[in-house]
Amino acid sequence: MKKYKAGLFGLGVVGSGVYQSIKADGEFPVSIKKIAVKNPQKQRNFPVDKDIIYTDANDLLNDDTLDIIIELINDPHEAFEIVAKALRNGKFVVTANKKMISLYHQELLRIRKENEGVLLYEGAVCGSIPIIRLLDQQFSSDEIRTISTIANGTCNYILSQMSAQGWPYDKALQEAQKLGFAELDSYSDVSGEDTRFKLSILILHSFGIHVAAEDIPMIGIEQVSKEAIDFAKSIDAEIKLVGKAEWNKGKLTASVAPEFVGASEDFSQVHQEYNAVQVDAKYAGLQFFKGKGAGSWPTSSAVLSNLKDITKDICYQFPKSAQTISNLSSLVDTYYISGKESILNRLDFEKIVDQGKDYWIVKASLTALLKTIKEGATFTCIRLPENILKINANTGVLV
Amino acid sequence: MKKYKAGLFGLGVVGSGVYQSIKADGEFPVSIKKIAVKNPQKQRNFPVDKDIIYTDANDLLNDDTLDIIIELINDPHEAFEIVAKALRNGKFVVTANKKMISLYHQELLRIRKENEGVLLYEGAVCGSIPIIRLLDQQFSSDEIRTISTIANGTCNYILSQMSAQGWPYDKALQEAQKLGFAELDSYSDVSGEDTRFKLSILILHSFGIHVAAEDIPMIGIEQVSKEAIDFAKSIDAEIKLVGKAEWNKGKLTASVAPEFVGASEDFSQVHQEYNAVQVDAKYAGLQFFKGKGAGSWPTSSAVLSNLKDITKDICYQFPKSAQTISNLSSLVDTYYISGKESILNRLDFEKIVDQGKDYWIVKASLTALLKTIKEGATFTCIRLPENILKINANTGVLV
Repeated sequence: MKKYKAGLFGLGVVGSGVYQSIKADGEFPVSIKKIAVKNPQKQRNFPVDKDIIYTDANDLLNDDTLDIIIELINDPHEAFEIVAKALRNGKFVVTANKKMISLYHQELLRIRKENEGVLLYEGAVCGSIPIIRLLDQQFSSDEIRTISTIANGTCNYILSQMSAQGWPYDKALQEAQKLGFAELDSYSDVSGEDTRFKLSILILHSFGIHVAAEDIPMIGIEQVSKEAIDFAKSIDAEIKLVGKAEWNKGKLTASVAPEFVGASEDFSQVHQEYNAVQVDAKYAGLQFFKGKGAGSWPTSSAVLSNLKDITKDICYQFPKSAQTISNLSSLVDTYYISGKESILNRLDFEKIVDQGKDYWIVKASLTALLKTIKEGATFTCIRLPENILKINANTGVLV
Repeated sequence: MKKYKAGLFGLGVVGSGVYQSIKADGEFPVSIKKIAVKNPQKQRNFPVDKDIIYTDANDLLNDDTLDIIIELINDPHEAFEIVAKALRNGKFVVTANKKMISLYHQELLRIRKENEGVLLYEGAVCGSIPIIRLLDQQFSSDEIRTISTIANGTCNYILSQMSAQGWPYDKALQEAQKLGFAELDSYSDVSGEDTRFKLSILILHSFGIHVAAEDIPMIGIEQVSKEAIDFAKSIDAEIKLVGKAEWNKGKLTASVAPEFVGASEDFSQVHQEYNAVQVDAKYAGLQFFKGKGAGSWPTSSAVLSNLKDITKDICYQFPKSAQTISNLSSLVDTYYISGKESILNRLDFEKIVDQGKDYWIVKASLTALLKTIKEGATFTCIRLPENILKINANTGVLV
């Protein structure tokens, strides 16, 4: 059997996992011949042959003996340059860089096509969960109606701890940072941006639609209050940061927002660092996938599976025809709102559905609500899906 | 794009779903040119062109213009003859016949290899859940430790209703039969046999091991009593029929048995006709997949995805080297037992771990317990995993 030769960019959390697991498996059909790193002097807690360490990208990209480039660095723009050149130089490419894929997917697919190349990125969305593979193969002949995801382990850890320990948001974030679950610069995670990058990739593979991540309305978890956590408990729900997209009669709606999830729903069983994806398709019906969303080994497992794909001639087919839409349709939903009473006068909503001592439940579009937040108003805003409203109307907690 | 021509065997629940969904999708790359049925006079509630209906298998199998044979009949032995001849005649084959795959997999893989053929059967295990695809691709470079499944919708429906409605087993079974969820001959479903067929296929793809389904110890749900359902509620658990297999240091253990599943576990969210699979792998960690396990459209979705695979040159690679083992290792576990007091004297168990007013919790091997059942003894026997024992020891319900 042919042994493929690979060049690896990056020896961080995922890169080191990939390197070590390939080393540990003597029969793996890909071997890593060169590694490009920023800092060759860095101490690593596992043995790496110094002779294969390089600092110039071209030492890998222009090496005709390498079949595959594995891109596992952080910076999405540098990563794009590497991946684009690798594809142009006729190399198979595997990456786990969600930000790069999200920001550059149109350009990447063009370059891939022009060069008849192979570009795989299972690890970019929800770590170990094989969702891109499934959308590309299993669901290729089905019609996906909605796709929803808990795609950010940091947010999920923080929300899980706020609920389980009764901690306020700030303390939960600090604990997450202490334990290494959250980065010191937590903006991309807690704002919803990271989930938005992943959702845009899921939209591409689910519906064949290119949408810019920045066009997806989002609200993060920084505004989730202890009162909201208590309210969740009162309606037998948990709060999760959920990215969701729906394709219906030629209209795409998509959003990222914290959401109340009922105790009987699959998403309520997604705790700590786990991720999940739910797909609703015409023939298959409702499907649910859960697994570890980040970390060295789980993400490595996705990268390894893509490397194996290359040796078996499996590549993405993009079965749904690609189209670009400039405007997402506005999604009107029900939201739990709390804050100063005066906030109500500033909010752009359709109607008040219910209200309690210290909250209102309003029907509104997220885009309209976000305008107020951008204007500097602070309030708590959490999506309250209709099924939860209905369940709690039956028990008398909500109207 | 080449349009593949297919011959379809069987126009029952799944066959009619496949036929109709291909008809409805004008762009599907496979068209059905001939259909073989037992009874061509049968009234069907959808239009079928009479000219393409045949009763002689050879009209399809010997037709050189057909690229693909889709086998969707019930009888596993007839199905095997069809599939074997189709492979020998150089046709691609898609089937959803778990019993046929389980009974004949060694022979089928041999014929497939000799004829360099393609044989796909995603629909044979857990309907719409793409587990064979994932084991063959995503997990091909990972090391699976355990695989567990709720694979029989009928059992799951009966157990769900016994718990939700307080019905005894007999009534729940009758209701399931009335609604068409259970067949009039329910033996294969409720005895665990159906789950055992599926588990043997999962074992083949997870560990590369051929094991005869009949060698897997099993106990069904007929013996689940109302008292056991009540006991489940007292320990915040539900009873599910679970097939599970573990590969550890060269030893394979496997079994099918009703099991107490704690309220916080993923399997507890699998209700009614849903199926689920849990995989624990070295790198990916714990993964959970849930979807509809049977029915016309969900199983059709799996068949359609396999047809699309054929047009994209995707076939099973069987990445784990195949070996046959003659003996499964004996699995010692903890079981909840209830019945006449005298049963204890007849049971072959290691020790009593706990006991209540009307039950005992014993450590035993399922194989040893089954001997007593084969000798005609009747008692209730449900696996009680250690994690549930531990949780309930903390709350004082169990020691």
